[in-house]
Amino acid sequence: MSKRSRKATSYDVARIAGVSQSAVSRVFKQGASASESMRKRVLEAAAEVGYRPNAIARGLITQRSNMVAVLISRMTNLNYPEVLVQLTQAFSERGIRVLLFTIERESETPSVVEQLLQYQVDGVVTAATLQGPQLELLDGAGIPVVFYNRSLRDGRVSAVRCDQEQGERWLVGELGAAGHQSFAIISGPADSAVSVERTSGALRRLKELGITNVPVVQGDYSYESGRHGFAELMKMRARPPDAVIAANDVMAIGCIDEAREAFGLAVPVDVSVVGFDGAGPAAFAAYRLTTVRQPVERMTHATVQMLLERIEDPDLPPEERVFAGTGVPGASARLPSPEEPRTLP
Amino acid sequence: MSKRSRKATSYDVARIAGVSQSAVSRVFKQGASASESMRKRVLEAAAEVGYRPNAIARGLITQRSNMVAVLISRMTNLNYPEVLVQLTQAFSERGIRVLLFTIERESETPSVVEQLLQYQVDGVVTAATLQGPQLELLDGAGIPVVFYNRSLRDGRVSAVRCDQEQGERWLVGELGAAGHQSFAIISGPADSAVSVERTSGALRRLKELGITNVPVVQGDYSYESGRHGFAELMKMRARPPDAVIAANDVMAIGCIDEAREAFGLAVPVDVSVVGFDGAGPAAFAAYRLTTVRQPVERMTHATVQMLLERIEDPDLPPEERVFAGTGVPGASARLPSPEEPRTLP
Repeated sequence: MSKRSRKATSYDVARIAGVSQSAVSRVFKQGASASESMRKRVLEAAAEVGYRPNAIARGLITQRSNMVAVLISRMTNLNYPEVLVQLTQAFSERGIRVLLFTIERESETPSVVEQLLQYQVDGVVTAATLQGPQLELLDGAGIPVVFYNRSLRDGRVSAVRCDQEQGERWLVGELGAAGHQSFAIISGPADSAVSVERTSGALRRLKELGITNVPVVQGDYSYESGRHGFAELMKMRARPPDAVIAANDVMAIGCIDEAREAFGLAVPVDVSVVGFDGAGPAAFAAYRLTTVRQPVERMTHATVQMLLERIEDPDLPPEERVFAGTGVPGASARLPSPEEPRTLP
Repeated sequence: MSKRSRKATSYDVARIAGVSQSAVSRVFKQGASASESMRKRVLEAAAEVGYRPNAIARGLITQRSNMVAVLISRMTNLNYPEVLVQLTQAFSERGIRVLLFTIERESETPSVVEQLLQYQVDGVVTAATLQGPQLELLDGAGIPVVFYNRSLRDGRVSAVRCDQEQGERWLVGELGAAGHQSFAIISGPADSAVSVERTSGALRRLKELGITNVPVVQGDYSYESGRHGFAELMKMRARPPDAVIAANDVMAIGCIDEAREAFGLAVPVDVSVVGFDGAGPAAFAAYRLTTVRQPVERMTHATVQMLLERIEDPDLPPEERVFAGTGVPGASARLPSPEEPRTLP
């Protein structure tokens, strides 16, 4: 079978094209110079013998695998598919492929890190929080890491994130200015760094407004957990809260559906509901969420750039870039002055 | 810096653990036998010297990279993130990682195939249609391919797919039985194999019912294109159609919003709207789509199994597995007898 026959080498190509082996290498190396006529001769010869450079073997020589690992958790948060596609395309434009790791719970990260070390990736983008021991393993192996939408307090690891606290402060401030007095929160999972920042940001701003004793029920970012969360809140108090702050848009949508269907409430007349993310379903006409949109495209491009710089130069110090969200007034909350979306603050 | 120091080898581990190098190999090889005490000694020694087997180098020896490529197009179709997560987790359970390739248009597949050959993947799952020349390249390299939700007419390539035509036949049959007489279709992109099957399946069943001259407007699977599609249909005729068949759920949602908001129509009283996919947003209470749900979990597991069998034994003949969808009566269409969801036919 032809499948088992000897693979063509760069020397075969060089012989047929009548050029040196190093010329063949140059043609196949990204960013290296080669004249158009040289490129044409080499590519034709390569097609003839079925030659194809081996990215993996080349990686063993250059110490580069041209692969980066992307760790994603909680894909139920509809914001992440968009992040993943944009990261993959941005890396792809630089000739780098994405090796994907999905995890259900952030507690799975240790075993995932062991695995990605085995694949000798050049770098790691993680939307799950890595802890000290895992970071040390990666650091010891000389593999740079960029955190996506989370950071370590000590600034020891590079990070790109949206300012979750600022976003929540805007939402709470607007709701407060519109006269909302009783609030409730549907948080994300306890082990989600993004949810923790959003919830604590909202609670801090509420406290500044003199509002304490805010009930918090925990969801898991899913639609069903948003519905369930609102039902839980209604069990706690005789009346619905003036405003519910959901830790993401999908839970806000579930919350709205439960308020309307199960309790016959009008949104936002009887209860205001706000979310976070600003991805696709937030704009569905039945919901038109009051939310904060994350600048996903700018964030993913910053992530790719930050990681590639550190693959090139591992001695660069950690860097953190914080992006402001965009306040989207929407129609799911009574706000003082409905306006166009605007970058915060 | 420690990053530059010599990497520990399996011989270092063997020396410290007081065992042979082949014993160390066995401990780190998936599926190979080693006693618990042996495993413990070796793992402790490995941790001590920071040894970690190199999956890539091992791949060069075993002729396996333990990576498969997954090609996904059109991530705007909200069904695909779920597919991707399930594929990644199912492969991961077998110790195989997913190298992700996202493409915007199916016409980009040739350059993507060139790239994945360079990464020496063990196999390919593709949700984009590969053509003859690309399949020959992969076949020549001995890399098995499984098509996801598409197939070649000649059965030359293994495929796992949902029976799109059967699903559309069920939708059209139910709508016809409920007395709908004028129909319209919002299709997906012209180069989407799934959309082509859905649209032609619906048209065929409509023809059987004696309904021809069905207007078809083209969308791109997005919410906005569903809205725009319905507006287009309303320009063509004085009255809305009795039923609109959208090629996916997200476009059906857009279509419903446009009918309600821009034309003041009630769904399903004035117009019935049906979708396809049955993923998350289909269940949002404001839409509760009448749709066909694909058995994504069973389909992804069949895909993983089919590919792994062919990586083990490249001489296995191509196989095609066709899964029936589940008819979901929903609330966005007037159907003869609202019932529980049921597997088709």
